[in-house]
Amino acid sequence: MTKKKVAVIGATGIAGQQFLAALPNHPQFEIVALAASSRSAGKSYLDAIREPSGMVGWWCDEPLHEDYARMRVVEADSFDSSSVDLVFTAVESDAAKQLEPKYAATTPVVSTASAFRYFDDTPIFVPGVNNSHVALLKRQQKERGWKGFVTPVPNCTTTGLAMTLKPILDNFGIQGVIMTSMQAMSGAGRRGGVLGLDALDNIIPYISGEEEKVEKETQKILGAISGDKIESANFGVSATCTRANVSDGHTETVFVATEKPCSVEEVARAMREFRGDLNGLPSVPEHLIYVHDDPFRPQPRRDREMGGGMTTVVGRLRQERVLGQNGVKYVLVSHNTKMGAAKGAILVAELLLRDGIL
Amino acid sequence: MTKKKVAVIGATGIAGQQFLAALPNHPQFEIVALAASSRSAGKSYLDAIREPSGMVGWWCDEPLHEDYARMRVVEADSFDSSSVDLVFTAVESDAAKQLEPKYAATTPVVSTASAFRYFDDTPIFVPGVNNSHVALLKRQQKERGWKGFVTPVPNCTTTGLAMTLKPILDNFGIQGVIMTSMQAMSGAGRRGGVLGLDALDNIIPYISGEEEKVEKETQKILGAISGDKIESANFGVSATCTRANVSDGHTETVFVATEKPCSVEEVARAMREFRGDLNGLPSVPEHLIYVHDDPFRPQPRRDREMGGGMTTVVGRLRQERVLGQNGVKYVLVSHNTKMGAAKGAILVAELLLRDGIL
Amino acid sequence: MTKKKVAVIGATGIAGQQFLAALPNHPQFEIVALAASSRSAGKSYLDAIREPSGMVGWWCDEPLHEDYARMRVVEADSFDSSSVDLVFTAVESDAAKQLEPKYAATTPVVSTASAFRYFDDTPIFVPGVNNSHVALLKRQQKERGWKGFVTPVPNCTTTGLAMTLKPILDNFGIQGVIMTSMQAMSGAGRRGGVLGLDALDNIIPYISGEEEKVEKETQKILGAISGDKIESANFGVSATCTRANVSDGHTETVFVATEKPCSVEEVARAMREFRGDLNGLPSVPEHLIYVHDDPFRPQPRRDREMGGGMTTVVGRLRQERVLGQNGVKYVLVSHNTKMGAAKGAILVAELLLRDGIL
Amino acid sequence: MTKKKVAVIGATGIAGQQFLAALPNHPQFEIVALAASSRSAGKSYLDAIREPSGMVGWWCDEPLHEDYARMRVVEADSFDSSSVDLVFTAVESDAAKQLEPKYAATTPVVSTASAFRYFDDTPIFVPGVNNSHVALLKRQQKERGWKGFVTPVPNCTTTGLAMTLKPILDNFGIQGVIMTSMQAMSGAGRRGGVLGLDALDNIIPYISGEEEKVEKETQKILGAISGDKIESANFGVSATCTRANVSDGHTETVFVATEKPCSVEEVARAMREFRGDLNGLPSVPEHLIYVHDDPFRPQPRRDREMGGGMTTVVGRLRQERVLGQNGVKYVLVSHNTKMGAAKGAILVAELLLRDGIL
Repeated sequence: MTKKKVAVIGATGIAGQQFLAALPNHPQFEIVALAASSRSAGKSYLDAIREPSGMVGWWCDEPLHEDYARMRVVEADSFDSSSVDLVFTAVESDAAKQLEPKYAATTPVVSTASAFRYFDDTPIFVPGVNNSHVALLKRQQKERGWKGFVTPVPNCTTTGLAMTLKPILDNFGIQGVIMTSMQAMSGAGRRGGVLGLDALDNIIPYISGEEEKVEKETQKILGAISGDKIESANFGVSATCTRANVSDGHTETVFVATEKPCSVEEVARAMREFRGDLNGLPSVPEHLIYVHDDPFRPQPRRDREMGGGMTTVVGRLRQERVLGQNGVKYVLVSHNTKMGAAKGAILVAELLLRDGIL
Repeated sequence: MTKKKVAVIGATGIAGQQFLAALPNHPQFEIVALAASSRSAGKSYLDAIREPSGMVGWWCDEPLHEDYARMRVVEADSFDSSSVDLVFTAVESDAAKQLEPKYAATTPVVSTASAFRYFDDTPIFVPGVNNSHVALLKRQQKERGWKGFVTPVPNCTTTGLAMTLKPILDNFGIQGVIMTSMQAMSGAGRRGGVLGLDALDNIIPYISGEEEKVEKETQKILGAISGDKIESANFGVSATCTRANVSDGHTETVFVATEKPCSVEEVARAMREFRGDLNGLPSVPEHLIYVHDDPFRPQPRRDREMGGGMTTVVGRLRQERVLGQNGVKYVLVSHNTKMGAAKGAILVAELLLRDGIL
Repeated sequence: MTKKKVAVIGATGIAGQQFLAALPNHPQFEIVALAASSRSAGKSYLDAIREPSGMVGWWCDEPLHEDYARMRVVEADSFDSSSVDLVFTAVESDAAKQLEPKYAATTPVVSTASAFRYFDDTPIFVPGVNNSHVALLKRQQKERGWKGFVTPVPNCTTTGLAMTLKPILDNFGIQGVIMTSMQAMSGAGRRGGVLGLDALDNIIPYISGEEEKVEKETQKILGAISGDKIESANFGVSATCTRANVSDGHTETVFVATEKPCSVEEVARAMREFRGDLNGLPSVPEHLIYVHDDPFRPQPRRDREMGGGMTTVVGRLRQERVLGQNGVKYVLVSHNTKMGAAKGAILVAELLLRDGIL
Repeated sequence: MTKKKVAVIGATGIAGQQFLAALPNHPQFEIVALAASSRSAGKSYLDAIREPSGMVGWWCDEPLHEDYARMRVVEADSFDSSSVDLVFTAVESDAAKQLEPKYAATTPVVSTASAFRYFDDTPIFVPGVNNSHVALLKRQQKERGWKGFVTPVPNCTTTGLAMTLKPILDNFGIQGVIMTSMQAMSGAGRRGGVLGLDALDNIIPYISGEEEKVEKETQKILGAISGDKIESANFGVSATCTRANVSDGHTETVFVATEKPCSVEEVARAMREFRGDLNGLPSVPEHLIYVHDDPFRPQPRRDREMGGGMTTVVGRLRQERVLGQNGVKYVLVSHNTKMGAAKGAILVAELLLRDGIL
């Protein structure tokens, strides 16, 4: 099989680097272009990520593949998207607003940016959770006259929440959700990232815009599709998002009121059996959701890398009776820069390829 | 005025040390006895806290007063409580069960241990919140035939929660509370405390027994008293308690459903105006509750020492509409070893002294 | 006595804030002007330090005095230094090069910047260590035709090193010094400061330019003065400077070869008895150098605030026989933003005032 | 080829677990017995490492192999060492003193304990550095009448130091070494390990006994062998060992005086070319020593896992002229629980097997 030619836009940033960390040896995708701002264009990738001090600013644990290191970075603004089969974008929202429609005119775009998330004709895929939302992409193409499309992944804090709510919704119905996050510092990136002076011995109780994203995106992702319209889920989501002194892996405490009675065992079973019709995709982990019985788990440091950072790890499942008459509460850990960003976007692309959309 | 003679029991532990850090120059109380286990008895206090390595195991930021350093430690088991006017106990729950009744036969005991918290004849004071629960102490004395009494302070995680819920309860009524804590490591003490290896780059999602304490104690503290009986508050409290890589200061995210409509401004005002009838007590801070408008506050490192560690610091007040039709959500920081333990116990004693119970 | 009128230049930065934290109620100095860049000029100080998010960017543990909060910030470039008796500058080196000569034309300047440190006519004061270097200021005034002068304090890493070497030099002579620092993050400031992602679970082995400063400044501070010339000390200093995950307080391991034999006890005594002829200065701590016998000290978190952050705390004194035939090795902790910056500069000003130079 | 049957003694501890993490799929060694104290004996390994809370106390990043999880733990005291070809011991020094001679009577023992390190008839292997010290094992067998032998690996702080000094010694001679370590918390293990409260925002300046071990072991490892006697290296080593808030990976700053002149480039080349005659051993990394040009490296978090934790990573090579007339200084990172413990011991066994001693 010929691999699909892909471009990574915003390749020098921390989110873009995660694509480069994940794609070597991918059986379906092959990077043929790396694009970034004009500041980097024309340089080799290795030079483009070199800091003024001379330090190579490569921030992933995985090594930088030498083929990528030698690739010449092109300018995102003038990149010819028709030269590739698929574009992954990992740029800020403002840049995405400009670039993504241009690329989508010719080519499918899977994006980690928020620019398109809230349009009626755009799905926010969490693979396994809302595969059926794919119908929106046809509508998007038609209405906008594009050959390609733009499909964003959700905010990294939404991913693990939506993933774990899905089997609860399917089996017991949901009336309301209350969530508190303790988010990792890598979610803030490096430019304007959290200072060590602020992170040390501390919790920062606010992440601008985060709670609104989590609330709105969760409702959209878990919404029902009818024809080519999504009806956002009609239960409320209320979130408090904080920043903790953790490098990678978002921890979330979740309280769910369900429509039907449910025991802790039933919910654990529903989560453990959740497969999401993703079998056979290259990046799918053995467990989409792993449920610990050990009450001291999940912990971000011990659990974030499970399934290559693609498994949402759950623990502390207990009855919840204050939010509603029936329900459960639990704690989850989800890797914010893997399943919650680049590797999640790759999984979306694998799903779209399998289903013939790509 | 002659100062009251007080003993500190469990004086060598981390909680006991906090009493010694707080009591020098206290206008009403004077330490005349330090008691600990037989291992320490007979030694000077300085020698008693010396570790095998020779290091002086004094863990407070405040210096150890040299008068205390020279005091001879007596054995808690054989300590004659009739020799003092007041006993502060800072021992483990099992020891408290044995020691506190013995002391209480002759002398008032204010305790940081949980041993007595759940008896019907025992109040759990958060000064300013439930001063009226003092009526139980008469009943306790009568029923148990004691000259003194035992009155515990709550679990350190309960203190800030009960403090901030009180003005909401008084002004708007409460239907339910959901709380997630990110607790400081000092709450786990030093013996069996959190290892650096577990704390670093991590959140530990479980603290054994903590959630049950918070739920039960909050309901009792906010319960109404009629005659000499407390009726626990009839709203539910649901908690998830986690441990964060923070030295001191518990952070809590709180979601409250109220009975009556309330605006964010009204709740902020109710909190800011909350005085709790504590004026004039030596340890009372300028603000029992301080409310930040800055969304990046409260932070444990910046806010825990406010009011000498006696102020509960609140921020991020917002409407809450998922838990109930009306309500608010917010974040609080409360100093777990100051207002939440020794200094809170001292404030209880000051209140009892003012009200003639001591 | 009338207080001297002082201006703080660079008042909004983290170093400048330390002056504002230290000067309320100072018996000799009174802030009458706060200056910063044109971006802040014209605003109240409180507004000038407000971040885009609305957060008040006040980074000291001490509260911001409300008089300062209300002061109108003036522009450093156009500030009329003749309106004050003394200028404290806390700006970057490039700005200092431009501003300080202008101010010095009319007024004494005590600076935390490095711009003037390496001129032959400029002393680098560590109070108590090289008071006699004051003779250079007369020369500086004469040669440059200034009414005032510029006198910088050393790099924060140099301060504790020079302080502890001084009694060794005086009593035993020094042949060579090897030092490794584990420096606090506050030394890097906030703009361009250390990211939490880099600090967590890590040591950063390099601080640009730091080692050269420490080596050159230590030799100059400990140099002999003859007439109005300093002869740099003729022993070598070799340093490796690293950054650790510590908020405040630089830790340094020091290996010293001495000219004469010296026992650990003799060196400890020399350090403990070191007074530096500073008695009576308002900011002088009880101990310029405090020597621990406990081998687990000094620790930055426990020892940095000793003497209000003005004491250099030493421990682990042992014989050193590899660097030379005679010698000692030890560990020190020195507060980098207090004795190592603003409060150290204030102590310099107090010394100059006492000695009639101001 | 038939695999050698090996036993891991002290298999439940943090050092023992590292053997289990490293040995699955080893081409030469196969674990057939896991031994521990009587407390664990008779239980499955999984049950033996279960904590009272129910948590599985498995502390390695690598998963626990299910074959090991099911193995029955035997008692170390009564373990029949003649049933295996090789014993790895990972027990405390006191236990090692008792157990290792017993095992060695029948079987080779490679140990992470210090019990045997300082005997004249015992080598301390750092593979590649002192392979020739193997001659001592014959003498040990003969003098003690053992069929097997005991050969310990060094203290984890010594390993990276000896490794990097070796090519310097061979090429330029060494006159003296000064070293400061910032050691990881995993080196202190879990029982009696570093508390989070002590590690946070702190450096602990003392590790009991560590400096003496580093100094003595480095001299022995780098000593010349003549016949079956080691002459310890005749240059001095002076160390200050501290504990930093790092999980894994010891960082060391090293100052070396050499006998001959040497440029930074020459030393870098000598380190890069150092192979140690280990080619073909299964656990040998691509680089025994990796030298960074980037001054911001090595960092423990970014570099400790290089070569599977078996590479000593060096950076900041500079001239050193204070310790002696010629020399260099540098910073190194070495993984303390991999190359510095279990995996280092496995590499020793591989070397002995290749050379026919096993």
